[in-house]
Amino acid sequence: MTTRIIHTMIRVLDEDRSVDFYKRAFGFEVATRLPFDGFTLTYLVNAETGQEVELTVNHGRTEPYTHGDGYGHIGITVTDLDSEHIRFQSESLEPTPIKEFVVDGEMLARFFFVQDPDGYKIEVLQRLGRYM
Amino acid sequence: MTTRIIHTMIRVLDEDRSVDFYKRAFGFEVATRLPFDGFTLTYLVNAETGQEVELTVNHGRTEPYTHGDGYGHIGITVTDLDSEHIRFQSESLEPTPIKEFVVDGEMLARFFFVQDPDGYKIEVLQRLGRYM
Repeated sequence: MTTRIIHTMIRVLDEDRSVDFYKRAFGFEVATRLPFDGFTLTYLVNAETGQEVELTVNHGRTEPYTHGDGYGHIGITVTDLDSEHIRFQSESLEPTPIKEFVVDGEMLARFFFVQDPDGYKIEVLQRLGRYM
Repeated sequence: MTTRIIHTMIRVLDEDRSVDFYKRAFGFEVATRLPFDGFTLTYLVNAETGQEVELTVNHGRTEPYTHGDGYGHIGITVTDLDSEHIRFQSESLEPTPIKEFVVDGEMLARFFFVQDPDGYKIEVLQRLGRYM
């Protein structure tokens, strides 16, 4: 059995706002845009992995989507977390402070969180240890 | 800027039940297991992409997680959707019927859905067209 994870789908209210966010924050580009009756699917591709974020835009929806407490986030690694944190601040993307996760004196993870325009959390991690 | 999507994090109630599900359904294996005070992180890796599903198990939680209406699913492609559909049925994984998405006479997508033990939806797609 070969299986391949290709995308994570989230529902968003404003396509342009989300496309702008994922481009400014992570350099994702629109790979494909499929408008249908009632909804549009927009695929944002991460050049390095080919992995996509699939935006579903339900036409006419104005009520913000609800998040429950089950789904967490996607994780995205970067080569220089400190410079990205500064850049996120200068872009007014409101990153949380950088957190370090140290266990038995070993740096396990360094990361911050950011929220996309619909409130989905994204963990931005230093490429380090098991988070490559 | 180089960025790399590495995981999707979901909160689950029963680690063994979820590990068993992702193995039986998609062949994912446990890459790393990190038990902490209060919670455990278990990383399930998709061999073909290196992409991971990160399970967060909050110790002592018994109330099912809620899902809201925002987050959708992860998408996973397979080489033979029909045989996987039969296998999912024989494994009592309760796949939805196969749907075909045809636009202007062109097969855009063939897929079914399955839910993991906590109710997260997973789209299983034939490797075809833009869904490779």
